[in-house]
Amino acid sequence: MHGGTAAERARSMARSGQHFLQIPGPSPVPERVLQAMDRQVIDHRGPEFGRLGREVMDGCRSIFRTAGPVVIYPSSGTGAWEAAIVNTLSPGDRVLMAETGQFATLWRQMAARLGLEVEFIPGDWRRGAPPDVIEATLASDRSHAIKAVMVVHNETSTGALSRVPAIRRAIDAAGHPALFMVDTISSLGSADYRHDEWQVDVTIACSQKGLMLPPGLGFNAMSEKALAASRTNRMPRSYWDWAEMLKPNANGFFPYTPATTLLYGMREAIAILHEEGLDAVFARHHHLAAATRAAVGAWGLEVLCQEEAEHSPVLTAVMMPPGHDADHLRKVVLESCDMSLGAGLGKLAGKVFRIGHLGACNSLVLAGALSGVEMGLARAGVPHRAGGVAAALAVLAEPGDGGLRTQERHGKAA
Amino acid sequence: MHGGTAAERARSMARSGQHFLQIPGPSPVPERVLQAMDRQVIDHRGPEFGRLGREVMDGCRSIFRTAGPVVIYPSSGTGAWEAAIVNTLSPGDRVLMAETGQFATLWRQMAARLGLEVEFIPGDWRRGAPPDVIEATLASDRSHAIKAVMVVHNETSTGALSRVPAIRRAIDAAGHPALFMVDTISSLGSADYRHDEWQVDVTIACSQKGLMLPPGLGFNAMSEKALAASRTNRMPRSYWDWAEMLKPNANGFFPYTPATTLLYGMREAIAILHEEGLDAVFARHHHLAAATRAAVGAWGLEVLCQEEAEHSPVLTAVMMPPGHDADHLRKVVLESCDMSLGAGLGKLAGKVFRIGHLGACNSLVLAGALSGVEMGLARAGVPHRAGGVAAALAVLAEPGDGGLRTQERHGKAA
Amino acid sequence: MHGGTAAERARSMARSGQHFLQIPGPSPVPERVLQAMDRQVIDHRGPEFGRLGREVMDGCRSIFRTAGPVVIYPSSGTGAWEAAIVNTLSPGDRVLMAETGQFATLWRQMAARLGLEVEFIPGDWRRGAPPDVIEATLASDRSHAIKAVMVVHNETSTGALSRVPAIRRAIDAAGHPALFMVDTISSLGSADYRHDEWQVDVTIACSQKGLMLPPGLGFNAMSEKALAASRTNRMPRSYWDWAEMLKPNANGFFPYTPATTLLYGMREAIAILHEEGLDAVFARHHHLAAATRAAVGAWGLEVLCQEEAEHSPVLTAVMMPPGHDADHLRKVVLESCDMSLGAGLGKLAGKVFRIGHLGACNSLVLAGALSGVEMGLARAGVPHRAGGVAAALAVLAEPGDGGLRTQERHGKAA
Amino acid sequence: MHGGTAAERARSMARSGQHFLQIPGPSPVPERVLQAMDRQVIDHRGPEFGRLGREVMDGCRSIFRTAGPVVIYPSSGTGAWEAAIVNTLSPGDRVLMAETGQFATLWRQMAARLGLEVEFIPGDWRRGAPPDVIEATLASDRSHAIKAVMVVHNETSTGALSRVPAIRRAIDAAGHPALFMVDTISSLGSADYRHDEWQVDVTIACSQKGLMLPPGLGFNAMSEKALAASRTNRMPRSYWDWAEMLKPNANGFFPYTPATTLLYGMREAIAILHEEGLDAVFARHHHLAAATRAAVGAWGLEVLCQEEAEHSPVLTAVMMPPGHDADHLRKVVLESCDMSLGAGLGKLAGKVFRIGHLGACNSLVLAGALSGVEMGLARAGVPHRAGGVAAALAVLAEPGDGGLRTQERHGKAA
Repeated sequence: MHGGTAAERARSMARSGQHFLQIPGPSPVPERVLQAMDRQVIDHRGPEFGRLGREVMDGCRSIFRTAGPVVIYPSSGTGAWEAAIVNTLSPGDRVLMAETGQFATLWRQMAARLGLEVEFIPGDWRRGAPPDVIEATLASDRSHAIKAVMVVHNETSTGALSRVPAIRRAIDAAGHPALFMVDTISSLGSADYRHDEWQVDVTIACSQKGLMLPPGLGFNAMSEKALAASRTNRMPRSYWDWAEMLKPNANGFFPYTPATTLLYGMREAIAILHEEGLDAVFARHHHLAAATRAAVGAWGLEVLCQEEAEHSPVLTAVMMPPGHDADHLRKVVLESCDMSLGAGLGKLAGKVFRIGHLGACNSLVLAGALSGVEMGLARAGVPHRAGGVAAALAVLAEPGDGGLRTQERHGKAA
Repeated sequence: MHGGTAAERARSMARSGQHFLQIPGPSPVPERVLQAMDRQVIDHRGPEFGRLGREVMDGCRSIFRTAGPVVIYPSSGTGAWEAAIVNTLSPGDRVLMAETGQFATLWRQMAARLGLEVEFIPGDWRRGAPPDVIEATLASDRSHAIKAVMVVHNETSTGALSRVPAIRRAIDAAGHPALFMVDTISSLGSADYRHDEWQVDVTIACSQKGLMLPPGLGFNAMSEKALAASRTNRMPRSYWDWAEMLKPNANGFFPYTPATTLLYGMREAIAILHEEGLDAVFARHHHLAAATRAAVGAWGLEVLCQEEAEHSPVLTAVMMPPGHDADHLRKVVLESCDMSLGAGLGKLAGKVFRIGHLGACNSLVLAGALSGVEMGLARAGVPHRAGGVAAALAVLAEPGDGGLRTQERHGKAA
Repeated sequence: MHGGTAAERARSMARSGQHFLQIPGPSPVPERVLQAMDRQVIDHRGPEFGRLGREVMDGCRSIFRTAGPVVIYPSSGTGAWEAAIVNTLSPGDRVLMAETGQFATLWRQMAARLGLEVEFIPGDWRRGAPPDVIEATLASDRSHAIKAVMVVHNETSTGALSRVPAIRRAIDAAGHPALFMVDTISSLGSADYRHDEWQVDVTIACSQKGLMLPPGLGFNAMSEKALAASRTNRMPRSYWDWAEMLKPNANGFFPYTPATTLLYGMREAIAILHEEGLDAVFARHHHLAAATRAAVGAWGLEVLCQEEAEHSPVLTAVMMPPGHDADHLRKVVLESCDMSLGAGLGKLAGKVFRIGHLGACNSLVLAGALSGVEMGLARAGVPHRAGGVAAALAVLAEPGDGGLRTQERHGKAA
Repeated sequence: MHGGTAAERARSMARSGQHFLQIPGPSPVPERVLQAMDRQVIDHRGPEFGRLGREVMDGCRSIFRTAGPVVIYPSSGTGAWEAAIVNTLSPGDRVLMAETGQFATLWRQMAARLGLEVEFIPGDWRRGAPPDVIEATLASDRSHAIKAVMVVHNETSTGALSRVPAIRRAIDAAGHPALFMVDTISSLGSADYRHDEWQVDVTIACSQKGLMLPPGLGFNAMSEKALAASRTNRMPRSYWDWAEMLKPNANGFFPYTPATTLLYGMREAIAILHEEGLDAVFARHHHLAAATRAAVGAWGLEVLCQEEAEHSPVLTAVMMPPGHDADHLRKVVLESCDMSLGAGLGKLAGKVFRIGHLGACNSLVLAGALSGVEMGLARAGVPHRAGGVAAALAVLAEPGDGGLRTQERHGKAA
């Protein structure tokens, strides 16, 4: 039942015990969520489903921190990207994006394929989207040709967190009416995010990162302004159409068959997040990220992200010393320690590896993961100093509120 | 964890034991499939995933009975409808569809929204798509303006099975080059279907019916001709793009994060289908359907589908006597017997109820389900004769190959 | 993972869908209970375990209807039989038992092995223990040599329910100080039972019948009188020792490692019973049993139990016509309908088959089960009339309180 | 469903992610085993069960390394202790035991309760049973009054592993006919053990330690000599009676209802052990234990076990500095790191804590666990040096065969 030939299976199982899944998503699914999903499907048009649907949609709002609607698609996060575009923009529309890394680049490709004209602020993949450039660009767009500013909150390929409130202020400072769309695919549920307070028009998310679910759900939260745009824009659409979703959603139902078992899991995942408290969740991830950076520093390696205020609480991308292949290290770690690390993507392939510390990660899991990296660096012959784990433990042993202060800076003062 | 307020939960749980989910999909998920899915996610770019992906894709081919590719989307079946269209057709293209029921009507709406011009062969919702009308229509389309013939194999809203081989012969008889697209959303895995042998160009399917999985996966199988069309058609697309899927699929991977846990389940579901043998599976469903029709006849009620050769092996829609509301009956059955029946859809709302006997259904489950209908008819005061269950048992007690012969007629001689 | 060779597995899985487990225990485990058990173990000496233990023990008391202690062993019900004996009696003690069937006979064998002298009231395996004979026997035991009256509440081998309140009155009428021990192994949770009100001294039970759990837990509920006996009796014991259990139990803990996952399930099973309400649960089982007897009568077959007031709500044993082998019928039913029926045990081997309708059984499951029996009788060539299922449906369609009245007679007036 | 009041539950869940269960059993249950158990029960007298039973019993033999029978009880390990005694000895028999720690002491208490006369070789709880004292004691027992030598292989309370082959040689050297009984409750499946080769007469084990199952199964493997003894000994018994078990076991069945779901899990657990290979499993545990001791040494703390050749591969007990309470440390670790450590038992209460590294433990889990101890020592203000985790990593990064050599010394030369 675990696939492959018997021989392959024997090999893959020759390692004992728990796999460490330390990629920046999908993140490990908590036992309670797995348990909630391990259940027969129900009639998606019956009364029990209506209660489930309403509960999940209400819960979503609390996580996106919005009083408005959140639509849930059976899709990946990529699908939610497409939904955001086809519901609000029209062929030929001009949009402003920022090259924060591989996922910003892929979203730009999608936008182009769907007929948009993309102005792409260049970037070096080592920091978030630049509020000042955004402001200047919008200010110079006197004709308001730019219809949307589209930003990736947490660049999963680099570990840089764009400062969404600062970008909001940049748009406002330019007095520009563009829609503001934010991809929170890898940040939602692990990094502070506030759809309403930050006046985002469309927030894009998915299930398998901070929400601690398996992949299979995509989300759009939308403002009144975005809904208004959706009533007049001219992109053909059917599956992704918000209006079709919102009608039955009002009673907890969906226009087509929803992914029932993932919704069971979602209800439980939302409960878990609220039991810990969202602020505590975000503080935990800042703490884990700070410990990870301490380890990287102690190893004498370099963190990819170069902006102190933009270090991701979700993942840390680590640069390899020149001449050393990150994918070789990852292979060594997988085979000797049964841990999966994230690969470098796009132009970073082979040059960085990524350590995920999102979702249900906690201190001891992180300590185990960093131990695996430290042993792997030695086994793979990568030049480094020992002591990374010890440095991380020193951070983890602290009360754990330093990270939160950084986060508050983002949310309130950045 | 089972949702709702404590009071609601107490109420919903006040019924003991097993719920009978007899809607025409989602169908009950076998325990082995639930078990296979109850498992931690893995790195979707790692070697174990590659093996899983290849195994599932190979398995898909065996179920669609094609040597060509099958792409798997995180989506509902509706998404797979959209994928079929946007990959092969261009805005303004003319297509030929047949009004077999509610789902044909919804697919037509989608086609119109995506910019197609639909010629819709009218129907009375009591039979499959008419091969003769299709042939005549195509024959008169000298300019080959019609780019695709799009048919629903099993109309989930009515319980009529269109004769796909006969339609294929109709297209060929007219010498028409239109693509042939077939929606097997509720038939695949429960009714005989042969993508290659019947020369279908695009087959659309989903996970939660004959494949016995929870909802969340959509499928497209495609012919060489369809692939060729996809290289030149002019529908903007990104999420659904076949070319993007097929590249990584070759190694068992996906262009974006796939719905891992559903793929675990899919591997097991395919194994279950092959252990029984596809022909035995189809014969079983014909047998269950024949028993259901015997019950309906004994009750003195009328089966909606009026073509003997087009009775669905997947579900049976039953007409209510005039003046009696099907939804009231369904409510009575749900509350007194803890069984979910399918509602009448669209213009059939309140006029029919639908009994699903697809997927993992077997003789005793069907006997239990028909018992629930018989008791419900009495409780709801619907005029009927007793003895439906007895009539069904008489059919179920037969060796069980009569149904198969009907099916063979479809596949080989119709 | 489903065992056997690949070929065996293929064969065993060639049947589709749901197995009907209609033996009189283990009974089918509800999905919620399976789900609750599908969880990592925890420290059996930590605070979370203490809460679990207390919750389960409190819940047990509510099911046994006692204010006193209930001890829980990792064991089968057989172990709980042994525990009852070794904690209260001494080698050479005389006890009074009644030959109600195979399980009474096995309990007597155990008593003899453990050094007791058993007076065994003979019986024909077609009724419960006789209160009048018990009264007469005790009355003539002037020296009070008899130390315990030991009765099986629901004889799982025959489907006869002994009238415990009447036996209590018989003991009282004889003015006899014997301990009163009752085996509720197959009745607890499906048939009305009241440890305190009926002044039972030791109640023996297990997990896999009315409690709807997998096998693996045995129970003893005990009166003050039984506890007093346990302080002076002279049977060597260690594992089963009540005193050792009761000390840590006070805080929710156990003297040795308990069967944690079954306790998870037990918490959920108790919640399910209370959500429905114990009285409603018992009424349901009376109703199901009445329907089953109606089917047996319509088939022209005979129910083994011959006392109207002692028909079991838990199972119905059906006599085969002379010359027909019950085990052949069971084999035919298993192979053609994928249903397990209970075998005749001991001297009833081959002569009866038993239909379980305990635990989570409901109307439609029973209707499916009886359908399987009716088809099996035909397939196996057993002389019978059709119409059993129809007769059962007629009973099941009634409001469903008739059974309860019978039960109340037991509890209050019998 | 996770128990307690809502408030308690919120508190207990306020910690994110994975709990580290590092007690010396129950050990964490691998996902594959949980998955295998998450399945409906089956008829315990039907053909599918027979296959399951035979498979599990064959598998047991391969783990105990015996060609003889292994009986499986629904019980804890304590029950298996009792079974070993009541099947082979008679009231008043003299037995020789060694005070290796709390569990040896408890076993001795049980023996005394069951009427045996125990000669208890005193010990300081810091080493295994002494072969030389055993040899001398037996040699001086000219009348062969001693009927059994009973030894705990791995003292779960201390982390000392008795040298079973050396004790076997001691018995042989004394030319003494006593039965040799070994408790492998916490060693089987994690430490090398060979029932036949080491000529053990009764081996006692349970499910929740090296076998990686939840608690609920107890085991006895027995030699021909033990079986012979069981035919003439004079302890009353019923539940534990080997003869009753062995008859139905021959066909894969049990004399009373077995704990079906644990047997499902057992089949999978045995498969996991064989996929890794027993020798590799044992080497892994030696390696993990060596790393743990390295950490303890680096912290400047003392390992309880003082014999180099008797360090347990299953757990490591660590002595607290005088004036520091181990239970306070454990509480701090549980609350701050969500890790459960083992308490000091009996006379070691508060003086030691125990780190389990048995069962499915691997390098990264151990690294996480030791990180939790290191942070906990700091938080609890226990005097220690940092650097324990670093020292452990240095050991873990080695090829990992050193431990195995120690083990081979036990098995072959000790």
